[in-house]
Amino acid sequence: MTHSSSRKPSLGTMPTLRDVAHVAGVHPSTASRALNEATRPLVNASTVGRVLDAAEQLGYQPNSMARGLKMSRTFTAGMIVPDLTNPLFPPMARGIEDGLQGSGYTLVIANTDNDLDKERAIVEALVNRRVDGLAMATARRHHGLLQELDASGVPYVLVNRSAEHASAPSVVSDDHAGIGLAVRHLIGLGHRRIAHVAGPQQTSTGFSRHRSFRWWMDNEGAEFDPDLVVFADWFQEEPGARAMTELLDRQTTFTALVAANDLIALGCYDVLRERDVRVPDDVSIVGYNDIPFADQFNPPLTTVRIGSYEIGLKGAELLLEAIRDQEQTSMSVPIPPSLVVRRSTCAPSTGSR
Amino acid sequence: MTHSSSRKPSLGTMPTLRDVAHVAGVHPSTASRALNEATRPLVNASTVGRVLDAAEQLGYQPNSMARGLKMSRTFTAGMIVPDLTNPLFPPMARGIEDGLQGSGYTLVIANTDNDLDKERAIVEALVNRRVDGLAMATARRHHGLLQELDASGVPYVLVNRSAEHASAPSVVSDDHAGIGLAVRHLIGLGHRRIAHVAGPQQTSTGFSRHRSFRWWMDNEGAEFDPDLVVFADWFQEEPGARAMTELLDRQTTFTALVAANDLIALGCYDVLRERDVRVPDDVSIVGYNDIPFADQFNPPLTTVRIGSYEIGLKGAELLLEAIRDQEQTSMSVPIPPSLVVRRSTCAPSTGSR
Repeated sequence: MTHSSSRKPSLGTMPTLRDVAHVAGVHPSTASRALNEATRPLVNASTVGRVLDAAEQLGYQPNSMARGLKMSRTFTAGMIVPDLTNPLFPPMARGIEDGLQGSGYTLVIANTDNDLDKERAIVEALVNRRVDGLAMATARRHHGLLQELDASGVPYVLVNRSAEHASAPSVVSDDHAGIGLAVRHLIGLGHRRIAHVAGPQQTSTGFSRHRSFRWWMDNEGAEFDPDLVVFADWFQEEPGARAMTELLDRQTTFTALVAANDLIALGCYDVLRERDVRVPDDVSIVGYNDIPFADQFNPPLTTVRIGSYEIGLKGAELLLEAIRDQEQTSMSVPIPPSLVVRRSTCAPSTGSR
Repeated sequence: MTHSSSRKPSLGTMPTLRDVAHVAGVHPSTASRALNEATRPLVNASTVGRVLDAAEQLGYQPNSMARGLKMSRTFTAGMIVPDLTNPLFPPMARGIEDGLQGSGYTLVIANTDNDLDKERAIVEALVNRRVDGLAMATARRHHGLLQELDASGVPYVLVNRSAEHASAPSVVSDDHAGIGLAVRHLIGLGHRRIAHVAGPQQTSTGFSRHRSFRWWMDNEGAEFDPDLVVFADWFQEEPGARAMTELLDRQTTFTALVAANDLIALGCYDVLRERDVRVPDDVSIVGYNDIPFADQFNPPLTTVRIGSYEIGLKGAELLLEAIRDQEQTSMSVPIPPSLVVRRSTCAPSTGSR
């Protein structure tokens, strides 16, 4: 039996079912069954004893707590996005809404502008306004706020991003497979000198796409050249343009590039157009995400579709489970990507860049 | 200053303004200004935060009922949008956020999918969660929910839309001027047979743009022909494509068109491309809104910029006033539009459609 002294809930926080389970050394679902008189006979007597002892020690009040929880449901969930002007997120929000709607939930969305202070203020506002759960699309690889959320007991899921050491479920695109689709498409067209305009490395998406790019280049027999990798410091058009400029200024030859997302690809379009480099004749470009209107760009963008709507839908499902069970599991659900071939890619011309 | 004489000699010690000031580390007069909403803007934001924290920590009860009500501010505002996948709204949301941020407000956004039941559920959820005010971008010309909002006493503003008989302030683009810019641009290029792909007429924007189109055609000596007007039933690409198909099927000649928004213009692009009608060589197109990426379309879209960011910013200002004054005025603030000429318009070729 564990010593509760190390797990005393801090001032002002109510002990949760998870606290009781932890102190009793059992799974929360077991603790729940032991605390509920109707299901108690399903649990063996010594376990019931441990759970009841733990509950008493912590001052956990099962009946009123459970009733309180049920009565206090707000049927409101929150979604935290890093950048509302990135068209990736509206379809994801739609997926979450559609996934929640059947259970009577409404979704409110808040934007952080990738600003950690703003994110903290917003999450606190929503937790104080008693949302029943949160879908976080803002996760960085190392993300202190998530540990605070873990401690608060508010159920949450990560969508499109994952974080190291998070105890919540996440729904992410299978970036490794997606970058593989992009690289093999270009190699299949005959490209060997392929550049990567990578995304911000503090995000799981920017990090894993870069790592996978290198892996696929090595494993598909193309020539990975560190000189052909540049980094955009944010997933937007302007940082993409700056990175593209840096790449061109290196004067290294390449015939194709994989951009870490579609907006970065658009920034590449802008710079290449200015310098009279033709897409795809001189440089083929593959984007990532298949945002709305990618088919309307000039040229229409070949890109990896991640299924952001599906990510949202699955995220909603996991969030509803977490709210219902009042416990988190750190499972990660990958959504398989697909390649959408449009007109920004073709075979390399002989003797080009 | 405090009115301790009016207080019951209580069981414990009631915290005074002086206590709050002491805990916050400021002069009592500063604490007083920070606690009074009318004078709060005179105090810097971090000091206000410290004072409010101290007041909350101590359980400080300001001396009037009104003040007490004001102290229960949540510093959360809501924005209701009809269609989050319309890229018009993210910059508007950004404008509202930026306008609110200086006053310590966070914004939560909710999407209605243009569904009245969903809108009602969302507004109720936000009002129950005690947002201090709402920015409504969903208004229809006749909108029952707004009357309920009037009755509820929750301050709100209308952004981008107006409603007949609403008692709230609205910030709208000056559509009459905007359509004038579009029509005169086309007439200046030499067009006379100009079509209008109008928006949904139950919205103030769709209605006023259509009315203004007719007015400007009549007043600029062009030929208004009802056969050249079709209606899209929503402000999206697909309804725009359907309306464009209807127009083409009428076999009426025209050399240019004004679309009620940019997404409807994109739907026109799709249909014209399918039918091998060239933009702008065969048909010039002017959109409306200047959404993000309008410069990336093929061809880049000539459009009327409404300043959606500015609409949001002004809306936030009016909302903060309404929250502070606890009263609504039905003023309407028009934001002047401008024309952005890109490559979807040119002089008509002789003997075309």
